[in-house]
Amino acid sequence: MVKISIIGAGSAVFSMNLVRDLCLTESLHGSTISLMDINKERLEVVHDLARRYVAEMNVEVGFQKTMSREASLQDADFVVNAALVGGHQNQDIRRNIGEKHGYYRGVGLGRYHQLLFFLDVARDMEKICPDAWLIQCANPVFEGCTLLTRETKIKVVGLCHGHYGALKIAEILDLDLGKVTFQAPGFNHCIWMTHFLYEGKDAYPLIDEWIETKAEKYWEKWNPEFNENQMSPAAVDMYKMFGAFPIGDTARDGGWWYHSDLETKKRWYGPLGGFDSEAGWNRYLDRLGKRMDDMFRVARDPSASVTEQFPPIKSREQHIPLIDSLVNDKERSFQVNVPNNGAIHDIPDNVVVEIPGIASGRGIQGVHVGSLPKRLMLHMMIPRMLRMEWILEGFSTRDKKVLLHMLLEDHRTHSLEQAKILLEDILSLPINRGIAEYFE
Amino acid sequence: MVKISIIGAGSAVFSMNLVRDLCLTESLHGSTISLMDINKERLEVVHDLARRYVAEMNVEVGFQKTMSREASLQDADFVVNAALVGGHQNQDIRRNIGEKHGYYRGVGLGRYHQLLFFLDVARDMEKICPDAWLIQCANPVFEGCTLLTRETKIKVVGLCHGHYGALKIAEILDLDLGKVTFQAPGFNHCIWMTHFLYEGKDAYPLIDEWIETKAEKYWEKWNPEFNENQMSPAAVDMYKMFGAFPIGDTARDGGWWYHSDLETKKRWYGPLGGFDSEAGWNRYLDRLGKRMDDMFRVARDPSASVTEQFPPIKSREQHIPLIDSLVNDKERSFQVNVPNNGAIHDIPDNVVVEIPGIASGRGIQGVHVGSLPKRLMLHMMIPRMLRMEWILEGFSTRDKKVLLHMLLEDHRTHSLEQAKILLEDILSLPINRGIAEYFE
Repeated sequence: MVKISIIGAGSAVFSMNLVRDLCLTESLHGSTISLMDINKERLEVVHDLARRYVAEMNVEVGFQKTMSREASLQDADFVVNAALVGGHQNQDIRRNIGEKHGYYRGVGLGRYHQLLFFLDVARDMEKICPDAWLIQCANPVFEGCTLLTRETKIKVVGLCHGHYGALKIAEILDLDLGKVTFQAPGFNHCIWMTHFLYEGKDAYPLIDEWIETKAEKYWEKWNPEFNENQMSPAAVDMYKMFGAFPIGDTARDGGWWYHSDLETKKRWYGPLGGFDSEAGWNRYLDRLGKRMDDMFRVARDPSASVTEQFPPIKSREQHIPLIDSLVNDKERSFQVNVPNNGAIHDIPDNVVVEIPGIASGRGIQGVHVGSLPKRLMLHMMIPRMLRMEWILEGFSTRDKKVLLHMLLEDHRTHSLEQAKILLEDILSLPINRGIAEYFE
Repeated sequence: MVKISIIGAGSAVFSMNLVRDLCLTESLHGSTISLMDINKERLEVVHDLARRYVAEMNVEVGFQKTMSREASLQDADFVVNAALVGGHQNQDIRRNIGEKHGYYRGVGLGRYHQLLFFLDVARDMEKICPDAWLIQCANPVFEGCTLLTRETKIKVVGLCHGHYGALKIAEILDLDLGKVTFQAPGFNHCIWMTHFLYEGKDAYPLIDEWIETKAEKYWEKWNPEFNENQMSPAAVDMYKMFGAFPIGDTARDGGWWYHSDLETKKRWYGPLGGFDSEAGWNRYLDRLGKRMDDMFRVARDPSASVTEQFPPIKSREQHIPLIDSLVNDKERSFQVNVPNNGAIHDIPDNVVVEIPGIASGRGIQGVHVGSLPKRLMLHMMIPRMLRMEWILEGFSTRDKKVLLHMLLEDHRTHSLEQAKILLEDILSLPINRGIAEYFE
């Protein structure tokens, strides 16, 4: 069948979801998954679990285990890039340098380490497997996919699961999920629910009613452990402002005024202060760590059941179904990140948007979305697009002045000097040496 | 010949410049200027001076003096809108309310009093003189002209004299002005010198040399009275960042980081802190006041010579030459504010841009400019356009949330509450009653 290369396969939960989905997709049996990571220990664990999983399921799926990207890309039909360069540890170091300068929870500089890496992988693909699809799931998906589709000849599609936030809304509204349909286009992590139907009828009035009669009670009941962005006061506030509900990670972000300090975060995102507060982020890392510990434990115990750890139920990740549609010409709709090409009005063709797309033997075809609410365009979409363009302008010109301007655009910067000193401090971090050299 | 209605004719210097230019333009002799203002005293003075000027020059120009806009528009061929609703006094009141909230030199809210007034005038024109040209010189020209060309059927052109800043550069470089040509397109008050030629050759290297060898000395010599934006450190900094020199009021604005406090302003704009500092602005008002005093003095003394006060030399205002070109089919180039219609790449057609335009018996035809430097588009033009769109979105939806968002976008806003309180305070100003009612 096909060869699927997972770059960053040490992301164990992610990889095992793909293995599981593949096992549950008969039309792809006989395929090979190439697990590639630079972390040998994690790679061993994932490889061990994956092989045992396939054995327990008694299906034919082959595996390659390699620390060589080149080897993994060889003969690949699909390359899934899931790698976070430097892992969460470097993310924390970067955040801390911002905090040192008074930027609560850090300051963004465009995640160039990721972009440089993405381009590296795609350039390798151009040489080794030029006809393969690159399925980009590592962030930043928006900047990354726009960069790759502009700069390389590789077929690129970005995938995320944030749009399922719409189902979280349905759940909180106590709706039968089987009767819900929705559409939430935009840019990755900046998507907005333009359509929400229940039994074929507009269900936005149900949201309005919930806000009117139940939201306050729902928020009061939030216990100290509660941490939910999708129906947070921030999300409702954005909906009131823009006329479309923010979906998934979109609600987690929003204006700076939801995030200026922990107290403010708590007010808008509940007792933990949302996903990106100190507590929220640590909880996420803890859970991820526990999940890894579980996996290592199972890996160390050859008699343990892997299918017990990963019950054979399809994940909601889109990767394997998408591959199945492309390989076996099964026409189905997905939420994809592809160049706009007219799908959303007033967005240039060469900007990657997150829209519904039809995947089949013909490839991936974006579905025409049309106009988004004007307010949304003016206050969220265009500013977000502009930031993406700043980041890519920095990438293509290697000019530090672009970085400086991005720091100046941060609402917490008070002077040019502050921005200059911060920039030098960020670029002198040992983990940022590659970026500093790039911008010399 | 033609009837030219000046709305806000009490702006005495402005009106007298037009009278003078008209007297010096033989092909328009026989025309009538309708002086319209709601300030009776100023109107009397301007009318008296204008009539005496014409008599002293011994040319045939008729005058109408009226406090009725309708009467002034009757049979008008050209309507010059120069009015500042509430004058500089209201401008100061608006600035002070911002300062009270900690916004140094005030905070902008879109100047809706002006926009409402502009639309009123244009609506009247649609009824009374639908074929007349509206020459818009009152600010905001960018928002105003875009609004009027979108919302009305009136022929609108915006004029400003800021682009002559390019000649100021030539002067400081000690060049023979007669041998200088330039092009400085953009949006009004956000224009950038894409071409600067001396004797037909690129003269940008002369600017670079000046920056390298003479700028520091030039700035050191700035005496305490010196106040000049065009070749200020801020302007040079913008040029270095964007690759094109900011012209006229463009240099006066720029990023927030040039303006955060008086000390910062002084560093970037010289000892007075630039045109918009306390001292800079007061000096401007003082000079304007003295000029008015002079005019009142001449008006009170029937034996005084008006031509002595206003020597019969053409001003550099474009109004009369433009009218002459349109009426008498004299094809000439002007710096005009008209809908883009493809002149500057990647700007929508229905956004008014400031570009070279050819005026003749055919009307006004924009000259194709092409692409501006990408950095300029990303960091200055698109953000400025976005702000214009926010302002017009507020205008068309009458939704206070748009105003709130504009305050949140101000770099000095620290919390949602601060913005909300500031907004309510601004809207409860007696002089803002009309705006407050509009946004109910």
